[in-house]
Amino acid sequence: MTYDLVIIGSGPAGLSASVYASRYSLKNIVIGDMPGGIASQTHDIGNWLGTQKISGFEFSQNAAEHAKSLGTEIIPVTAEEIKKVENLFSISLNDGKNIEAKTIVLATGTKRRELGVSGEKEFIGKGVSYCATCDGFFYKNKTVAVVGGGDAATSAAAFLADIAEKVYLIVREENLMCESFWHENISKNPKIIVLYDIQITKIEGDKKVSSIILSKPYENSEKILVDGVFIEIGSMPNTDIAKKLGIELDEEGCIKIDPNGKTNVGGIWAAGDATTGSNKLKQIITAAAEGAIAVNSIQQFLKK
Amino acid sequence: MTYDLVIIGSGPAGLSASVYASRYSLKNIVIGDMPGGIASQTHDIGNWLGTQKISGFEFSQNAAEHAKSLGTEIIPVTAEEIKKVENLFSISLNDGKNIEAKTIVLATGTKRRELGVSGEKEFIGKGVSYCATCDGFFYKNKTVAVVGGGDAATSAAAFLADIAEKVYLIVREENLMCESFWHENISKNPKIIVLYDIQITKIEGDKKVSSIILSKPYENSEKILVDGVFIEIGSMPNTDIAKKLGIELDEEGCIKIDPNGKTNVGGIWAAGDATTGSNKLKQIITAAAEGAIAVNSIQQFLKK
Repeated sequence: MTYDLVIIGSGPAGLSASVYASRYSLKNIVIGDMPGGIASQTHDIGNWLGTQKISGFEFSQNAAEHAKSLGTEIIPVTAEEIKKVENLFSISLNDGKNIEAKTIVLATGTKRRELGVSGEKEFIGKGVSYCATCDGFFYKNKTVAVVGGGDAATSAAAFLADIAEKVYLIVREENLMCESFWHENISKNPKIIVLYDIQITKIEGDKKVSSIILSKPYENSEKILVDGVFIEIGSMPNTDIAKKLGIELDEEGCIKIDPNGKTNVGGIWAAGDATTGSNKLKQIITAAAEGAIAVNSIQQFLKK
Repeated sequence: MTYDLVIIGSGPAGLSASVYASRYSLKNIVIGDMPGGIASQTHDIGNWLGTQKISGFEFSQNAAEHAKSLGTEIIPVTAEEIKKVENLFSISLNDGKNIEAKTIVLATGTKRRELGVSGEKEFIGKGVSYCATCDGFFYKNKTVAVVGGGDAATSAAAFLADIAEKVYLIVREENLMCESFWHENISKNPKIIVLYDIQITKIEGDKKVSSIILSKPYENSEKILVDGVFIEIGSMPNTDIAKKLGIELDEEGCIKIDPNGKTNVGGIWAAGDATTGSNKLKQIITAAAEGAIAVNSIQQFLKK
């Protein structure tokens, strides 16, 4: 199969790219096993223009349905290798199949940053989570810690406070670095205790998490008893494929793109959270816009 | 009244800026008499991610309601003059009132060039369109006319020929005034018929467009049957206010912005179709993203 465009990544950038490509009548396909990407795990989206409140799951379903309604297939596989063969790209998928593309959009998004403390890896799925929306439900009337001070951490704390009995928000800095919408929400909520200028040094437990050790005492003890730890300290661009293709990254590992969304490798564009676009403001709206910009450039390229 | 941010323009860029500003708890107000801007006139929006089909009117209502739900007022007035008074801007409105702003986002959009013929206004949204990307999709296997001879018209004709059965390109001049790239594309495409040195004098129909009348006969008739007329004779950024403020424009009259959305005048940002942002791809999604990027930069500026 030769496609005009193969989109690698099924988050907002990839799905928006697909919607634009289909409307330009470009034969396209989306490779991605998680429609909506990490946006699908956001418990409430409140800044998507025209929609006052929608869950990340519902938004992602809508976005995937939108792309599919225009004829695009979203295939839940992984691209293992991309080779340039004359003027085409040959993409090997992990289901053993091979597809060909005239152009590619890398919309590979980001992966969660890990805390890197003892116990973190050991207790993943046993009290350690990177997704409050996915796992919050299991902590009804329990005590949890959320690590981080940005929008992701504060919105997760607000969400978890509706379920859990008590939420500790563990902030490394001396201030929160979030929308004041979340700041106010957190401040008003008696279930949330914010600890500033402090870090988790260890996650402890037996079969599952039972406590965390702090870098300095809180109420005379470095140990706090918790049933769960939610780690919300940001993300890193997924660029394994980009690196293999010789695509230039910036000092933070983001894929460098020009105003057209082009990378330095001919025939390959990139869009969304993995890139240097949109002044690196990582939002659903900016990712979706980058997908549109890249595809607009691609359709001009393909006409030549 | 002193606002953290006064947003001039109530299209997608302005309303998205307001949503982001409110969620950052910036006291903001939107000045604009047409919520949704020219997007409100698109008969069907089909490329807004997650929404398969929505009228421009409904989208615009939703966007305005979203901004208002977060506490922002949208006032249907015009900014007549903006003066810098020490560290604040003083904005005179045409209702005689005066407001003060710490920062401004210019989201003034564009005005489209109209053809000025009988039937044009009557059939807007009923066969007359100013946006092939927005509306082309609805003319699958139909016959359309495109008016104009520049890049916008020729690229629209090329785009529409992938969808429609037949495309008449109505060129007033004796030549196309476009990149040779588009010229070649058009010439090679058997679905596109280019008529030179000719004008549309009237657009006719009943409930929707059914034909156009030409200034001279084509194949022995001044009437051509068409389902749609795309008027692509350009749009012009609204920059009267920007010019008075000494803001730099590019050669096409667009407000020059940096990756933060900043103009060359301190305290003034710009977003949306009036700017050089998003590679000048004028879409709702790109305008909304630019609004978000500008406000993210503004909240950092105001924290200082």
